[in-house]
Amino acid sequence: MERVCVYGSGNWGTTAAKIIGENITKLPNFDHKVSIYSHFETFDGVSLSDVINKTHENPKYLPGRKLPENVYATSDEKEALDGATMLVIVVPEQFLESSLRSIYKNIDGRRLKIISLIKGVYIYKDKIMTPTQVIEYALKVTPSVLCGANIANEIAGHEICESTLGSFIKSEADLWYSLFHSDYFRIRCIRDTYGIELCGALKNVVSVAAGIADGLGVGSNSKAAILRVGFKEMRQFIYHRHPYTPPEVFYESCGMADLVASSLGGRNHKIAVELVKTGKSFAELESEMLGGQKLQGPMTAKELYIFNKHEGITEKFPLFTTVYQIGYEKKDPSEIFNVLVGLKLE
Amino acid sequence: MERVCVYGSGNWGTTAAKIIGENITKLPNFDHKVSIYSHFETFDGVSLSDVINKTHENPKYLPGRKLPENVYATSDEKEALDGATMLVIVVPEQFLESSLRSIYKNIDGRRLKIISLIKGVYIYKDKIMTPTQVIEYALKVTPSVLCGANIANEIAGHEICESTLGSFIKSEADLWYSLFHSDYFRIRCIRDTYGIELCGALKNVVSVAAGIADGLGVGSNSKAAILRVGFKEMRQFIYHRHPYTPPEVFYESCGMADLVASSLGGRNHKIAVELVKTGKSFAELESEMLGGQKLQGPMTAKELYIFNKHEGITEKFPLFTTVYQIGYEKKDPSEIFNVLVGLKLE
Repeated sequence: MERVCVYGSGNWGTTAAKIIGENITKLPNFDHKVSIYSHFETFDGVSLSDVINKTHENPKYLPGRKLPENVYATSDEKEALDGATMLVIVVPEQFLESSLRSIYKNIDGRRLKIISLIKGVYIYKDKIMTPTQVIEYALKVTPSVLCGANIANEIAGHEICESTLGSFIKSEADLWYSLFHSDYFRIRCIRDTYGIELCGALKNVVSVAAGIADGLGVGSNSKAAILRVGFKEMRQFIYHRHPYTPPEVFYESCGMADLVASSLGGRNHKIAVELVKTGKSFAELESEMLGGQKLQGPMTAKELYIFNKHEGITEKFPLFTTVYQIGYEKKDPSEIFNVLVGLKLE
Repeated sequence: MERVCVYGSGNWGTTAAKIIGENITKLPNFDHKVSIYSHFETFDGVSLSDVINKTHENPKYLPGRKLPENVYATSDEKEALDGATMLVIVVPEQFLESSLRSIYKNIDGRRLKIISLIKGVYIYKDKIMTPTQVIEYALKVTPSVLCGANIANEIAGHEICESTLGSFIKSEADLWYSLFHSDYFRIRCIRDTYGIELCGALKNVVSVAAGIADGLGVGSNSKAAILRVGFKEMRQFIYHRHPYTPPEVFYESCGMADLVASSLGGRNHKIAVELVKTGKSFAELESEMLGGQKLQGPMTAKELYIFNKHEGITEKFPLFTTVYQIGYEKKDPSEIFNVLVGLKLE
């Protein structure tokens, strides 16, 4: 008997719990109760998990969307994880390490099947780690990952979309597939995690570039050219780091589709438009537009630049480098078009 | 000494003549005069080529854009081709064969260097030919091709964009590169023609699909998923026809960039939006919106369907097939989302 815990009650975690809660009642060999671990916080002075359990809705992060009654929230981590065999980790990337320490203590040595829904990547000066690598290191498991062109609110509203499930273990992939795949949320599996996760992180840098192009008011020709270069650099960077990446990664939801969707809208795109229009820095705009919350696109652009500089490869990635320079070194935004270079026949 | 003739004075032909006219004066070993062959037609009762030569502007197809003074138009085909060593063919695809017969007569057995700027493809029930294949067959040369995310008006207005130059002959590619590449029009070369041309044709079918999605009013998640499937089917179809296609084809302007730009706007996209909103057929909309002129997207969708049916492979291309069925067999537009199928780990 499998039992599922969704670790995290934000926008995407609540949506995941909703999907799983709907699917699980049709599955044999699954406990139909799904727990959400909600780090203690309040809504209108009441504990958020109490509100969720009473109203079957998460008014703070997914207002207006009903959760099935078999989903229950708790801010008691031990209770959330009690008996769990399958764990959906969906916390903000900066909280992953502390969450893993806490999970480790509460699972009493059980080996769980884990899937990461975290979009993010840890780039240090001389090292890159993806969320599944961090989980693998901490808990000695081989986690799966779910990543795609997924805006939680659209999915929670049952708009048809796709997502990519990356896994190396067929039996676990099949279980996660049965929990996530539905009429409106179509899951496609690939035998990979690293490439999928890097796509999810790098595409944010490209969507910043697309926002810069839109901020400059160019036509669709020029914007499409920027996306093209971005897609090429993503592919090049990922192959450089991991030559065994299966090519489907770039042709599934986690690749091209996520890139296109993020470059048409979304917060990384929007902040770049404002950067061009106001001449302010990312830091200023983050504090004005997001109350100081850090956006992943600018952050990844910076970390990636530091990493590439350390490796001596900034020139191989002109778009990534230029996004950093425009965002943090006051380079003229119109220099984004310098990445469109001619190429003679070889 | 090379001499250039641009064969065709429409929107894209006039833009090409403008770019070449600007570049050619900086090139040694080139006659600086560039001829445009303009099939006889009038503007305000006067011969269009006379208007072009007098005003250095093509008010019918590229109003408001000045042509350099070394560009001259003539509707005397023999005069236009006189002494030409390099020929830019840019006529509507349905006129290519008759144009080639006429060119053949007028070049007196000289072997010209030829580049095709035609976006289109000839699909018969059991055969597919690209414009360069037709030219090769008729004139016994190995033509190059220029194809990308290029909206003529944006380029004529010096908006920065890219294009892909496909060629198998290094020396000719270099000549065409020097004629087309500029600050605002950046040329990148690939050793291919067939894949490039098929991308240019098939992407129109995908932009019809994108228009259907937009007509249904879906979010960017769902639209991006449709583009993803379209891109995948383009790639699959091209590799099926020509396994030696270099992968860059899909990562250059002629591939991903042209697909994205066309799916954000353009006439194929627009007619599909109207198809969904009004319930009218492509034929009705073409007659209402374009005075009966045929759009390439719907036409290619139909020819492709007939070809694929003959080959017994319609099921391998669910998006292409569904676009045809929605456009010509009154299938419900929302069935476009049936192409988003789940996929378990293999």
